[in-house]
Amino acid sequence: MVQAVQRAVQILRELAVTGPRLGVTELAERLGVAKPTVHALLRTLEAEGLVVQDRDSSKYQLGPYLVHLGNSYLDTQELRSRSLTWADLLARRAGEAVWVAVPTDGRMLVVHHAFRPEGAVQILEVGASVPWNTCALGKAVAAFAPAEERERLLAGELTVLTGASVTRPDRLAAELERVRAQGYALEDQESAIGDAGIAAPVFDRSGAVVGAIGVVGPVERLLAEPARQELAVAVRETARNLSRDLGAPRAAATGAVG
Amino acid sequence: MVQAVQRAVQILRELAVTGPRLGVTELAERLGVAKPTVHALLRTLEAEGLVVQDRDSSKYQLGPYLVHLGNSYLDTQELRSRSLTWADLLARRAGEAVWVAVPTDGRMLVVHHAFRPEGAVQILEVGASVPWNTCALGKAVAAFAPAEERERLLAGELTVLTGASVTRPDRLAAELERVRAQGYALEDQESAIGDAGIAAPVFDRSGAVVGAIGVVGPVERLLAEPARQELAVAVRETARNLSRDLGAPRAAATGAVG
Repeated sequence: MVQAVQRAVQILRELAVTGPRLGVTELAERLGVAKPTVHALLRTLEAEGLVVQDRDSSKYQLGPYLVHLGNSYLDTQELRSRSLTWADLLARRAGEAVWVAVPTDGRMLVVHHAFRPEGAVQILEVGASVPWNTCALGKAVAAFAPAEERERLLAGELTVLTGASVTRPDRLAAELERVRAQGYALEDQESAIGDAGIAAPVFDRSGAVVGAIGVVGPVERLLAEPARQELAVAVRETARNLSRDLGAPRAAATGAVG
Repeated sequence: MVQAVQRAVQILRELAVTGPRLGVTELAERLGVAKPTVHALLRTLEAEGLVVQDRDSSKYQLGPYLVHLGNSYLDTQELRSRSLTWADLLARRAGEAVWVAVPTDGRMLVVHHAFRPEGAVQILEVGASVPWNTCALGKAVAAFAPAEERERLLAGELTVLTGASVTRPDRLAAELERVRAQGYALEDQESAIGDAGIAAPVFDRSGAVVGAIGVVGPVERLLAEPARQELAVAVRETARNLSRDLGAPRAAATGAVG
């Protein structure tokens, strides 16, 4: 490991987590590193566009080049580029917002967000990440992941976001069984009070699960019958079409458990 | 400057620019650095989530944590958060897509994108960056920047993207004069054939220009009269409201040239 690079990333992380603007002294304290070292790291990051210094306060904040790098990452995601049309069609059919997400380190990273048609002002959630056990997208992926990966997830950190978040591994394991049987996953206010989700897994040409697509919205609209059944069908069909588009074999695309 | 950090950022840049997946040998050649050094940097970046290694090819690509960092940057932009509602209103009034952008290093970085209502599938352009001299957003900012900043921009690199891109500093300077006089800027296919834009500057509480907001769309819809005049009025009014929302003094918000 290269210590200077670790520290540079730590600085970025502090700026992302703790607050928009931090000074050299504050950063030195947080990192437990001498001020001249932090200063040299900041100047290097600034020259590369990863941080910028505020003219008035001389404090540092994240820089715009990070957006470019983040977008370059998103552009490498074939799931994202292939999902644009399918997400749009699903949003229209369902009349709800649609998220496409990939698993990263126990969380689901939203890589595409199709807005709810005709909705109010909506904030784009691309880049948001949600603990896998609290959302339908994460449960859809975990249910169809290889058994060892699923066990790793169940044995790992299980986050509580609301009173409805499920953190007992045995209850989650049973729920993943149901997801495998029915081909889609549900969230009932497990990540935020009032919010629900219905998601299905997406497979690539090797037949491995690479992410999930689903609708998100108020629990009253999503989980009341008959909406719930109709949305589940629409989500599962869309996930299957997207999987086929990614080259998934037919058996994998339908989420058939072999 | 910290050389290890510079090289780590160079690796990220190569992965962003050259291609999604590169191996240790390719990266070592491009950077002119020994393979063991590149390998140590990659392992550090991987541990921090900034790159990931592909299981099959063992090549490296950008990692998902960059999306999180990029989003954290966007969240620090007060212009972006304040613009959500205004951009949405403008998109509805104009019936066109709306972009909000901030100046970064001679380019305009799109920090918010409100889709055209009722349009076809649209690709989100947040994170895209456009040379300032080829877009209405950039010309709106340059026209209202402090004189020394404007001269620096005119003396800097002026990019050609289409046959209509303007790169003669004297012609651009004359155009910026007109932008100052009328309070908005136009793009007529200077960044892409068939595309046009109409944008106006946004000011913060200190009265300094911090970015621009504008409509983008096909030249036939945007620049034909009377649409052009009506869109210009809508864009200018929206920019003024957004500036006032950011705390700009009334004189600055109207783009009055002092």
